[in-house]
Amino acid sequence: MDTTRKAIMLVMDGLGDRPIKELSGRTPLETAKTPYFDSLARRGVCGLMDPLAPGIRVGTDVGHLALFGYNPFRVYWGRGPIEAAGVGIDLEPRDVALRCNFATVDENGVILDRRAGRIRHGTTLLADALNDLDLGGNVKILFKQATEHRAVLVLRGKELSAEITNSDPGAGREREPVRTVQARRSGIAMAGRTAAIVNRFIEMSREVLAEHPVNRERVKKSLPPANAVITRGAGMAVRMRSLAERFHIDGGCVVAESTVKGIAIMSGFRIYSAASLTANLDTDLDEKARLTIEALRDCNFVVVHIKGTDIASHDNDPRGKVAFIEKMDAMAGKVMGALEDPEHTYIGLTADHSTPCAAREHSADPVPVVISGDDVLVDDVERYGERSCPKGGLSRINANEFLLTLLDYIGATYRFGA
Amino acid sequence: MDTTRKAIMLVMDGLGDRPIKELSGRTPLETAKTPYFDSLARRGVCGLMDPLAPGIRVGTDVGHLALFGYNPFRVYWGRGPIEAAGVGIDLEPRDVALRCNFATVDENGVILDRRAGRIRHGTTLLADALNDLDLGGNVKILFKQATEHRAVLVLRGKELSAEITNSDPGAGREREPVRTVQARRSGIAMAGRTAAIVNRFIEMSREVLAEHPVNRERVKKSLPPANAVITRGAGMAVRMRSLAERFHIDGGCVVAESTVKGIAIMSGFRIYSAASLTANLDTDLDEKARLTIEALRDCNFVVVHIKGTDIASHDNDPRGKVAFIEKMDAMAGKVMGALEDPEHTYIGLTADHSTPCAAREHSADPVPVVISGDDVLVDDVERYGERSCPKGGLSRINANEFLLTLLDYIGATYRFGA
Repeated sequence: MDTTRKAIMLVMDGLGDRPIKELSGRTPLETAKTPYFDSLARRGVCGLMDPLAPGIRVGTDVGHLALFGYNPFRVYWGRGPIEAAGVGIDLEPRDVALRCNFATVDENGVILDRRAGRIRHGTTLLADALNDLDLGGNVKILFKQATEHRAVLVLRGKELSAEITNSDPGAGREREPVRTVQARRSGIAMAGRTAAIVNRFIEMSREVLAEHPVNRERVKKSLPPANAVITRGAGMAVRMRSLAERFHIDGGCVVAESTVKGIAIMSGFRIYSAASLTANLDTDLDEKARLTIEALRDCNFVVVHIKGTDIASHDNDPRGKVAFIEKMDAMAGKVMGALEDPEHTYIGLTADHSTPCAAREHSADPVPVVISGDDVLVDDVERYGERSCPKGGLSRINANEFLLTLLDYIGATYRFGA
Repeated sequence: MDTTRKAIMLVMDGLGDRPIKELSGRTPLETAKTPYFDSLARRGVCGLMDPLAPGIRVGTDVGHLALFGYNPFRVYWGRGPIEAAGVGIDLEPRDVALRCNFATVDENGVILDRRAGRIRHGTTLLADALNDLDLGGNVKILFKQATEHRAVLVLRGKELSAEITNSDPGAGREREPVRTVQARRSGIAMAGRTAAIVNRFIEMSREVLAEHPVNRERVKKSLPPANAVITRGAGMAVRMRSLAERFHIDGGCVVAESTVKGIAIMSGFRIYSAASLTANLDTDLDEKARLTIEALRDCNFVVVHIKGTDIASHDNDPRGKVAFIEKMDAMAGKVMGALEDPEHTYIGLTADHSTPCAAREHSADPVPVVISGDDVLVDDVERYGERSCPKGGLSRINANEFLLTLLDYIGATYRFGA
């Protein structure tokens, strides 16, 4: 393997958009002043990228699985195992992992706040009180807090199934009771048994949390107590070769968002993060630039994930999206200026999916991409944007193909055939 | 089937390249003066072609399997069977075929020259001495010389496996001993048995070759004797419908290189070759042009393979590559001038993969392609090149698709559906 060449893949979550009236019919990316992205487009080969294939709308998890080389049509095991990896739980085969929220419920189990006031403090203590809870029945319980109100539940034991429903009724469904977990399909004994275990856990967690000192303190301060756990996204991990193993790359990921972090960990990547990275619009992009340069010292392939664009899109805030894109561009400029070996460092610009502001939701629109570097076949594209990049030399490829093309430039792929 | 229309597919091995500094940032193809290729681009539809898919780097064998309509993800049986077909051995099901080199070893079995001084003369006699060697154990041995120091070994019998390692330590590994062949995975009895047979063959071949008159003569002339056989690329042929059978085409292939020849024979194509075709930079392109016209009399689909571009690329000789491309262009001009029915003859320009000179190795870069003919939807592309063709009407397709598109123009494809 060529060890001198390195690559950065900058993933701007939900970057792609559609023409917006208040931006005079341009997209946020077309509106933003992006001198650094444009200079990469001018020194690169451009194109469109579908996460999976044209017309298929994906979530952040599926979009990133594809960008990390997985085939989500074959391998999609639900969010639970990804989040478990993200919080550092090393899953064993047959473990069932679930995403959880700390929530606030009333005495009848009706949900008052699905996020317990977006609780930030004390969740480690709360999680410790639930971890290793003895439910009987030879099932071990692992419970660990994630960011803010989020947590992960792992069931370890025999004859478990991930084919169970959510107890969390979902966003916007406050004032509904916590749902009883059930087997997704009838007649699967293991699923029924697993559902019963999760229901028992939820019941016991309410007892444990009700009198917990962290919650007493919150009630005193008129904050909503984190007095219940609600679950969703049950899944079972599939053991498979990670990206780092497949291509013998030293991978690094600059990331704060837990799903992407989980996928990066599963992919065998080292994580570069800091407390000032919030996976939101207020994240510390200077720190991201610094960590990117740091990661490039140890790694030959560094993925940088930035969440803010998706947040602004879901909030239908086109001007906020424009402003954040300009900040990311400045960050890219900082990274480009600090590269220790710019001649041998390729930079890929991409996104996990489009999130048009007006839709406030992901769409199937392809995203514009660039690969820049010293020996790429530069095309005529002069701007990084949804309508300039389709004229570029990459034509239209998918996320796996984008990744492999970038890895081929650093000599990390292997030859199929003799 | 329309019997009047015919097509030529010109495969320029390793043609695609990247910008090269000493060529002022152009590729060899962009640098070369190619009036005939450009006239085909002007009268044709252009695009980019990936051998398999974007980002996947292939060998000459896989690239050609794809150009001959196979799906190498499903069907890749190693190089042995391809080479066996190339030397005219008609494989039976369950035969194991291996590529061999005549090599020079010292008395301890240490390799002094993996190619026995690129021996050219006497290999037929040496091969005859090894063919039909009796190893016992109900296994029949077929051994046949290929070009120069190359040869093919076929084991025919029951309970054989191709899951065995190489005795050839590989290029650049002179001064190492001939390796003992082993089962690739433990616990496969047939593989262990096959490995033992190959080891016995290698041992006996040294005894037979040591005192062979051809080698006595070589030693007298201070040439390295071909006193050992080393093996690699064991494979078992998969019996499947050939391209000629699938589409009822009369296929012809103008070729000297043994791998491509083998794939063409497996594809049911007639071979057109001559002693002056060397599969190297000194090949006789006038003869290739003549053979192409000859083949078009008998065949409605003629593949012309030219190796020189790949040779110059592996040698990192951009100027040599430019010069050879110009020779190929002149050859194309001769063929175009001699066509008996130019109005009904389509010409496709393509490559099996890119080989950037600077890398001296295949890359995953797509290759530029053209299909020209009287009724194709001509696009605006005016030059045949890596950066002009992406703007053409074919967009980005793979080798199977390129082949089928060309076959569709001559009416050889069948309709899927009613």
